[in-house]
Amino acid sequence: MNDIKIKARLFTVHDLEAGITITPNTDQAHYLLKVMRVQDSEQVVLFNGRDGEWLSAVRTISKKSCGLEIMEQLRPQIPESDLWLAFAPLKKSNTDFLVEKATELGVSRLLPVFTENTNTTRVKSERLAAIATEAAEQCDRMSVPEISRVQNLTDLITGWPAGRTLLVPDETGGGQSLKSVLETSIEDRDKKNPHGFLIGPEGGFAASELDALDKLPFVSRVGLGPRILRAETAALAALSCFQAVAGDWQQAPRFNNGYFFNARK
Amino acid sequence: MNDIKIKARLFTVHDLEAGITITPNTDQAHYLLKVMRVQDSEQVVLFNGRDGEWLSAVRTISKKSCGLEIMEQLRPQIPESDLWLAFAPLKKSNTDFLVEKATELGVSRLLPVFTENTNTTRVKSERLAAIATEAAEQCDRMSVPEISRVQNLTDLITGWPAGRTLLVPDETGGGQSLKSVLETSIEDRDKKNPHGFLIGPEGGFAASELDALDKLPFVSRVGLGPRILRAETAALAALSCFQAVAGDWQQAPRFNNGYFFNARK
Repeated sequence: MNDIKIKARLFTVHDLEAGITITPNTDQAHYLLKVMRVQDSEQVVLFNGRDGEWLSAVRTISKKSCGLEIMEQLRPQIPESDLWLAFAPLKKSNTDFLVEKATELGVSRLLPVFTENTNTTRVKSERLAAIATEAAEQCDRMSVPEISRVQNLTDLITGWPAGRTLLVPDETGGGQSLKSVLETSIEDRDKKNPHGFLIGPEGGFAASELDALDKLPFVSRVGLGPRILRAETAALAALSCFQAVAGDWQQAPRFNNGYFFNARK
Repeated sequence: MNDIKIKARLFTVHDLEAGITITPNTDQAHYLLKVMRVQDSEQVVLFNGRDGEWLSAVRTISKKSCGLEIMEQLRPQIPESDLWLAFAPLKKSNTDFLVEKATELGVSRLLPVFTENTNTTRVKSERLAAIATEAAEQCDRMSVPEISRVQNLTDLITGWPAGRTLLVPDETGGGQSLKSVLETSIEDRDKKNPHGFLIGPEGGFAASELDALDKLPFVSRVGLGPRILRAETAALAALSCFQAVAGDWQQAPRFNNGYFFNARK
């Protein structure tokens, strides 16, 4: 494996099994042919979120596309953390940033939510999906986080699944520290009790929203220390703390195969 | 206090004591007069990293400047975490981002370091200082992190102070999880043993650099889970985990006074 030169690592919607040849989508073909300038027989890693991770070889290059022949499985599918992040959309680049970093930090589902103080009125789901896909390709995940349709806060909490704890970082000082809440949560219940975070907009939640959240049995307000974090910082800090205390940070990256793949952007 | 409308929260180099009047610098005067359009008697919060946090009132507005009369102390000076972050400068906006977020996450000193694979050849210290200052103003800190002169990795480790642990996130899987390293570090030694992190460039450390780091008694390689994090994500994730496990996240924000200050940018 150490001698393999991987030209790219790509998410695909196709089923993956040895011997078949798949066609990359238009963007991927452009990236492979024009950016990475792949040659016949060069190798590309593929994953689809279901069938594990596979090595493929470039075949039948034409002007605008190529085939990718699936060779051997590199890793079986590994489930990701079952960790949701609901967030009020932020100013454009901050939302992009939040989606990229949340993907790197192992979120399984991203749920954009409109709150009273949310300034943004549109969510470009396709753009966010593209950012999440590229981050997943880059960070060695074997899945891409799902991106839910944008909804109002009321709908989010009405439809929140039974048994999933919703942790709400609280800059007013009303919550226990996130670490102690997580440690209690792990001790009390089955460790597999799934969690989600809810991150408010730049202007914070309205008082009525905080009141409504406090009435819900599955909601815990949590503290992220004495400084007032920006919304995107709070999201990343909370996710990092979760993975370190209750998530998958006990695991190491897989053995480094000595290959390096470039980001698509 | 609940009725106070604070127009801004600013870092100043001046000494702060009741009764004196200070003059904001040119940028601050522009911000107060042209952006925030302050009026006589309106209130501005000031801190200088030494004398605590003070309420001041706007006086003697002229076309280009104003005076700020120091009124009463709001909080005595509180020491920040003694936490260093050494980092290889990243592509421009990522370095800006890292400095802003590290400030929010309570770093006391930022140390830019050139490594073998660092692509950047210049560090704009003034720009980074301005970003750190604004982040400190915004996140309710009472100090601004120091920014050291850029140095080579060899000089950093040669001059590293005795008794300060240097934690190096390691994406090759060679380190124990950061949480367990921190917990051991807290148990074994005095909790006040200070720490620093070293974050490599986008391309990672060279093998010779990792070898040199491994030979140092104060260095521990640490793991941040199974995914390969981008350099700036690794920095924030490591700092968040530190503050949650060994830092000041047991503290809450001060009582929310119901005032809101806008970021300067």
